[in-house]
Amino acid sequence: MPYVNIKVTQEGGPNGTGPSTEEKQKLVAGVTDLLASVLGKNPATTFVVIDEVPLENWGLEGRQVSTIRAEQG
Amino acid sequence: MPYVNIKVTQEGGPNGTGPSTEEKQKLVAGVTDLLASVLGKNPATTFVVIDEVPLENWGLEGRQVSTIRAEQG
Amino acid sequence: MPYVNIKVTQEGGPNGTGPSTEEKQKLVAGVTDLLASVLGKNPATTFVVIDEVPLENWGLEGRQVSTIRAEQG
Amino acid sequence: MPYVNIKVTQEGGPNGTGPSTEEKQKLVAGVTDLLASVLGKNPATTFVVIDEVPLENWGLEGRQVSTIRAEQG
Amino acid sequence: MPYVNIKVTQEGGPNGTGPSTEEKQKLVAGVTDLLASVLGKNPATTFVVIDEVPLENWGLEGRQVSTIRAEQG
Amino acid sequence: MPYVNIKVTQEGGPNGTGPSTEEKQKLVAGVTDLLASVLGKNPATTFVVIDEVPLENWGLEGRQVSTIRAEQG
Repeated sequence: MPYVNIKVTQEGGPNGTGPSTEEKQKLVAGVTDLLASVLGKNPATTFVVIDEVPLENWGLEGRQVSTIRAEQG
Repeated sequence: MPYVNIKVTQEGGPNGTGPSTEEKQKLVAGVTDLLASVLGKNPATTFVVIDEVPLENWGLEGRQVSTIRAEQG
Repeated sequence: MPYVNIKVTQEGGPNGTGPSTEEKQKLVAGVTDLLASVLGKNPATTFVVIDEVPLENWGLEGRQVSTIRAEQG
Repeated sequence: MPYVNIKVTQEGGPNGTGPSTEEKQKLVAGVTDLLASVLGKNPATTFVVIDEVPLENWGLEGRQVSTIRAEQG
Repeated sequence: MPYVNIKVTQEGGPNGTGPSTEEKQKLVAGVTDLLASVLGKNPATTFVVIDEVPLENWGLEGRQVSTIRAEQG
Repeated sequence: MPYVNIKVTQEGGPNGTGPSTEEKQKLVAGVTDLLASVLGKNPATTFVVIDEVPLENWGLEGRQVSTIRAEQG
């Protein structure tokens, strides 16, 4: 009964839309398959929760990703 | 000084509103009471944080809950 | 399909044992019942994960709980 | 390669805006500096994720913070 | 720069050893590959953290997994 | 009433001891001060929880940190 939490940035500008519905489906299916194949975990009790984080709420190198992206142009 | 995080799906359609204010209050009070009665924890330093997760961001059985709900429709 | 994470300190000295097996069972049952009664959530897909945190790894008031407990001693 | 998650309430009314962009930048820089100075961690692989939680989704003393704030007037 | 947290039970008895080193390596590689292929995320800044949870600290169906496993005996 | 979770690797070999008690105290004090100075948060209700993660449970670049450290000699 694994629980998996995936946090990714909401790319695509200040109000980025983040991953599409289809991309999220691929993440859910891929992680669930991985846990079934590596550890024999039952997909019926495998939870996957995706959190989409605004660029200005994610920091790396001591800076907000929104700033890093702006500098990368 | 317990910290409790409750994650639930935002039920009620693609833009589901999730639990109501009153339901959230019952969750907060119920969890705080439980920790006080079972472990003697002080409500003054018991935190409860509720996260509402969009249906398409929650996976179960390798599928998004939005897909599962649509099939149950 | 809620997911609940409960973090509590491992009370009982520097190597405190934390909550007993029976106390953990009461937490699991209590939280699961609460989510069923307030939001109608199915216990079969309600996860509860308890994390026990060493006193010196939990901070409050800018101090470690191990220090606070020693002063209360 | 530390990972830091900061959860704060979205202050400023029912639809509070939470911390400003500048305040978030200070949090990101401050936490990254702290981990570099105390533990020698490399800022290039230090992640900081800020979650802003609506007042009615945060409980303290068995009540929602939205209720506590309203009583404080 | 995704962050992924995988929580699994420590199977193998009351003091189960949980996943082996090799199994953990497969989880790390598999999740990192998935995020690169689905979302184009850079492996150099993809974090994967695995938490192993004792059976008596994980609840499902309102019971501890240690109890469920004993009944399945 | 912020909640901060800091995850760091347990450096110092396969059974690394991770940060010392004094280093943890500096992290707790530093983060609490930062939230007080940037956002005016009250230290009395600021929680800091430090998680120490074994090197083989942390992945970066698709590999376990234990492997990366061994290669770095």
